[in-house]
Amino acid sequence: MKFVTVLIAGTEKVALLDAEAGTVRPLAGVSTMLDLIERYEALKGGLSFAGDALPLESVSLLAPMPRPPRNIICVGKNYYDHAQEFADSGFDTSAAAGASAIPDAPIVFTKAPETVVAPGAAIVLPKGLSDQIDYEAELAVIIGKAGRAIPRAEAMDYVWGYSILNDVTARDLQQRHKQWFLGKSLDTFCPMGPWAVTADEADGTGLDVKCWVSGELRQQANTAQLIFDIPTLIETISSGLTLRPGDIIATGTPAGVGLGFDPPRFLAAGDVVEVEIAGLGRLVNPVI
Amino acid sequence: MKFVTVLIAGTEKVALLDAEAGTVRPLAGVSTMLDLIERYEALKGGLSFAGDALPLESVSLLAPMPRPPRNIICVGKNYYDHAQEFADSGFDTSAAAGASAIPDAPIVFTKAPETVVAPGAAIVLPKGLSDQIDYEAELAVIIGKAGRAIPRAEAMDYVWGYSILNDVTARDLQQRHKQWFLGKSLDTFCPMGPWAVTADEADGTGLDVKCWVSGELRQQANTAQLIFDIPTLIETISSGLTLRPGDIIATGTPAGVGLGFDPPRFLAAGDVVEVEIAGLGRLVNPVI
Repeated sequence: MKFVTVLIAGTEKVALLDAEAGTVRPLAGVSTMLDLIERYEALKGGLSFAGDALPLESVSLLAPMPRPPRNIICVGKNYYDHAQEFADSGFDTSAAAGASAIPDAPIVFTKAPETVVAPGAAIVLPKGLSDQIDYEAELAVIIGKAGRAIPRAEAMDYVWGYSILNDVTARDLQQRHKQWFLGKSLDTFCPMGPWAVTADEADGTGLDVKCWVSGELRQQANTAQLIFDIPTLIETISSGLTLRPGDIIATGTPAGVGLGFDPPRFLAAGDVVEVEIAGLGRLVNPVI
Repeated sequence: MKFVTVLIAGTEKVALLDAEAGTVRPLAGVSTMLDLIERYEALKGGLSFAGDALPLESVSLLAPMPRPPRNIICVGKNYYDHAQEFADSGFDTSAAAGASAIPDAPIVFTKAPETVVAPGAAIVLPKGLSDQIDYEAELAVIIGKAGRAIPRAEAMDYVWGYSILNDVTARDLQQRHKQWFLGKSLDTFCPMGPWAVTADEADGTGLDVKCWVSGELRQQANTAQLIFDIPTLIETISSGLTLRPGDIIATGTPAGVGLGFDPPRFLAAGDVVEVEIAGLGRLVNPVI
């Protein structure tokens, strides 16, 4: 199933999306997407609705989880070609000189939860602070139940669903501060959506990912090419840290980001970034 | 003033501490420490109480903020001697070979909010995952109001108060994953407390910090020795990211951590870690 978080008459609601019909139908008795996730096993067989289906165009889409319960868990350098372009760019502070561009273990950092913005919302350039703002198209995995030391073989049982995420990054800040949190956590730097698709409908392990900037195709890959696949990420992250319902794992971006060009092609005011993942929709955000 | 979060008859309460008398007096009309922080300017002149003062020994102390609203914002390598010992240890993946051990800009990463544990609670060794568990005594700054692009000169106006924090770290995971989130975010790896002291009572810019492991003094410094002082940290972190009430900034640890010894002296079951900061109390946690 596909779920959206929407604003209806100024109130946040969770709704079931019928993508083919282009309608959304608000759920009854569900307060937030996190609430739905936490009770999904009990609810999914008999969803109840508050009113009729509404045209998708008549509601304002928010990010599926407008305010994640804690920082978004992000994976760096998780596609071979991107790991290589990042090493070649000179921006990568995560590897010693001469070391392989390909990581031996997942590189995991976070983005502040308040960076999340809605489909269609602006990515706001931080004028005077950085003019090296880059896009990163990523598959987001949404965790459905709590677990620690989750073995690879059971990891997919912990996935509630998927969405699209743009891990917008200030490259100079990422480089200057060595650890990446600041360069990844500027306000508006995490567009997410347009909706969440449950794991009983989508399989995140083989999805085409594409990203356009102002109509030009820049990134194109398939999540089957992840260096560390979803079960490995869940096993690794949960080895010492209890994963919780509503945790979001951004699985890393393919080659084709702005720093991979020579000279780099960073975002500029007036650009539009579109990220499409097969079966998960298309996330479109203007840059201002 | 000094405030604690306590459990009284199984219910979480915020209380005013009289450290000299050894009593706590629960506040009326305040739900959590975050609620107090957000309304402190209005409340501080006329606190009201729910009942009489109770002996401190009669209540269970929780961390002052048992569940921070988002990840704890942590600063790495922020004392000269520690930056040097970390570089010398070979564990530091944040600097290119041959680079100075002293950072040019604050190194900022996060710890998951659910790593926070109470004074007296156990630091649980992650058996089978890491046997390189280290302590890091730190001054924690608690932010009182929202702000972005806060200039140095105004930064201290955004500080609500202070507490003590032990930034427990799995050194091998910190090293293996390059970015430090995983090595810093194991369950129970953030003892905090014993209480919060408001900025109208304490000045965080010149406090003695000490840490003992099983009675042996290991760390001793003064927060005046921070490479990047509190106003600089607030200015830097808020430059692109809106700081919010209840945000916690862990300001970095002095020299004397376990990896600074040759051979390293990591924590073992049965150890007790005690961190004392002048005016802020003493945070004691056993290791199991």
